Amino acid sequence: MRYNVESYGFFATPCNNLGVQIVLYMNTKQIYLDNAATTKVMNEVGEAAVHAMTEVYGNPSSLHRLGIDAERLIAYAKKQIMAALGVTSEQGEIIFTSGATEGNNTAIFEIAETYGKRRKRVVTTTVEHPSVEKAFDRLEEKGFEVVRVGPDENGEITADSLYSAVDENTCLISAMLVNNENGYILPIGEAFQKIKKRYPDCFTHCDCVQGFEKIPLSQKKLCADIITLSGHKIHAPKGIGAMFIKKGVRLTPLMVGGGQQKGVRSGTEPVPMIYAFGKAVEILSGNLSERYNHATEINNYARNRLSEIGAVILSGTSASPYILSIAVPNIKSETMLHFLEEKNIFVSSGSACSKGKTSDVPTEFKVEPQYLDSIIRLSFSFETSESDIDALCEAVSDGMKNLAKIRK
Amino acid sequence: MRYNVESYGFFATPCNNLGVQIVLYMNTKQIYLDNAATTKVMNEVGEAAVHAMTEVYGNPSSLHRLGIDAERLIAYAKKQIMAALGVTSEQGEIIFTSGATEGNNTAIFEIAETYGKRRKRVVTTTVEHPSVEKAFDRLEEKGFEVVRVGPDENGEITADSLYSAVDENTCLISAMLVNNENGYILPIGEAFQKIKKRYPDCFTHCDCVQGFEKIPLSQKKLCADIITLSGHKIHAPKGIGAMFIKKGVRLTPLMVGGGQQKGVRSGTEPVPMIYAFGKAVEILSGNLSERYNHATEINNYARNRLSEIGAVILSGTSASPYILSIAVPNIKSETMLHFLEEKNIFVSSGSACSKGKTSDVPTEFKVEPQYLDSIIRLSFSFETSESDIDALCEAVSDGMKNLAKIRK
Repeated sequence: MRYNVESYGFFATPCNNLGVQIVLYMNTKQIYLDNAATTKVMNEVGEAAVHAMTEVYGNPSSLHRLGIDAERLIAYAKKQIMAALGVTSEQGEIIFTSGATEGNNTAIFEIAETYGKRRKRVVTTTVEHPSVEKAFDRLEEKGFEVVRVGPDENGEITADSLYSAVDENTCLISAMLVNNENGYILPIGEAFQKIKKRYPDCFTHCDCVQGFEKIPLSQKKLCADIITLSGHKIHAPKGIGAMFIKKGVRLTPLMVGGGQQKGVRSGTEPVPMIYAFGKAVEILSGNLSERYNHATEINNYARNRLSEIGAVILSGTSASPYILSIAVPNIKSETMLHFLEEKNIFVSSGSACSKGKTSDVPTEFKVEPQYLDSIIRLSFSFETSESDIDALCEAVSDGMKNLAKIRK
Repeated sequence: MRYNVESYGFFATPCNNLGVQIVLYMNTKQIYLDNAATTKVMNEVGEAAVHAMTEVYGNPSSLHRLGIDAERLIAYAKKQIMAALGVTSEQGEIIFTSGATEGNNTAIFEIAETYGKRRKRVVTTTVEHPSVEKAFDRLEEKGFEVVRVGPDENGEITADSLYSAVDENTCLISAMLVNNENGYILPIGEAFQKIKKRYPDCFTHCDCVQGFEKIPLSQKKLCADIITLSGHKIHAPKGIGAMFIKKGVRLTPLMVGGGQQKGVRSGTEPVPMIYAFGKAVEILSGNLSERYNHATEINNYARNRLSEIGAVILSGTSASPYILSIAVPNIKSETMLHFLEEKNIFVSSGSACSKGKTSDVPTEFKVEPQYLDSIIRLSFSFETSESDIDALCEAVSDGMKNLAKIRK
């Protein structure tokens, strides 16, 4: 095994008697193929956060200049996100949240709270992230009729099936753009356009977490009244997200207090995270198509190489190139995950959000039962190289030989 | 006016054709006396955040080593906060939130949701932060009987008045430890101990945001079932907070999803912010009493000097030394605030959370009506020096001469 010194850093721990202790970190080359779980923050983005922590550190609600300077960083971030969604401030608002869980919860709970007094039907899919799935479970407990649209016998969710689930009694449809487990792209734009045309009072919400800055998208094409975004899936820090809320949509606030963000989301704005998020969006918006092409090449390369060694490709060819779901026959997901980890290759056994829990999503997508325990999710970034995929294939191949033996 | 070059920094903005643009920031000496609104993040704390953004960047829910490494940073932060509150993991949980607004909302809404089915009375004070005040307003709309205890004719909130407001039908009492507008310290420990003794089923919640790491406190002395903390008031970043939740207290989660943080607070944990918060707590816990003594000296010095020049001291002598509320007779708060800002001195006209809104808290504390429009809040940090106070006094004195003229 080679040990390439890839990165080093020093990290000062204060408050001991010797003053400052310097710890050197030396890592072997890490092959991180778990970018759908979370991403490494880009250096410029981390610098932006620190700039707002230590230089532009005012409270945006403060009336003095330091507050106004902090507000400018927020305005910058909003502008970047609006541009990335192809919207103007005439069309709606960007509200910052603590992440996609808050965004999804707010959209679902608060549309239901504001508009669901009489219209008691809400529609979603069977393949949503838990922060959407569980929010609908709660609405169901509160007396809403929840309709969950699943993939058909071919593993496809059609625009027609989403459209048909909505009726004049429906106040909300919420569906994700890109599935987090296999990259499947739902026909949101087509579905929401049809729905809005016939039922203009039905609100449309799209969880775009795995699509934003990865595949081309725009609010207009999605025809979404509310869009949920997350920072940490796009090389910004964990703990920041955003919502686009179309003009005219009134949300009962999930949290109340100082009335920040026009009262929709109280709480001092986390300026460092907001500014960092905006910086990541600015950087990534500048090269979306190059990155998309790169991910497509990596994805195709991985599909071919992994098929050759006997892995089963589960993601369809029209899925997001950033996510590739595979099964390694007869080897349990966790066994393979830890085997790869020993070789400094990091993958997921499903989505990171369902630690220790089995997801129903593969079954919904008609994955054959014999593969359900053997699923590995690979997710790529702009840093992923073909040699990373070579190392992965070598390791998977190795695992197939050695781990199969152990099983006997 | 002197221009001291206090700090400089470079900040790289990527993605232009010349590669990287370096912008030099040169600031004149800033006298920041608005630390109750928010604080400057300590350098070591910012470095900790960046460490978790770019080195230990895994998702704590990931099963592989990068996830476990991230979990360790969370465990470190929990340990620091538990030590600072004087609790062990036997006694309860630390749950991370996006800030004190989420913490206060969660405590109040979710105690009411879980335990308020039959016991419909809830108690608070008239001088709470908006994130508590507004939460109780919402409970009132939902049919709870809200009792709000205010200061007596001497401007004091007594333990007896809090105790007397509770009865066997009360599921919650929520009161702050240190008032954010004038530093008034409420007799929380005495009140909650009496309440718990007679009404053990009444849950006690304390918003400790302005007290934590500033005045000596412990969960045991407070006798609080739930404690709300915030990072950005103690030189950690904005966007992170924590709650202590005593063992046995069941909260219906405000947000649902991936089931992180034992299901109490779903959403990928914001590891960089959590780790930074832990680092700030570790550093500040190491010198709480030195800092307290320093703040006391600064506060006393400011009281004396400001009185000499004719300002009216509103904070009582037993208030937290970190906050000093004053009135500059006949000069409107905002006028003075902006006058001071011109001299690079930053203060608040009230709390930063009530931008553009008038707070009722001074009236509650029996501030004389003629001073209500002239209140200035000074709030100190370990960086505040006597020369800062000298500069403030010189500026206030200047303002009293010049601004009074303008008024005529």
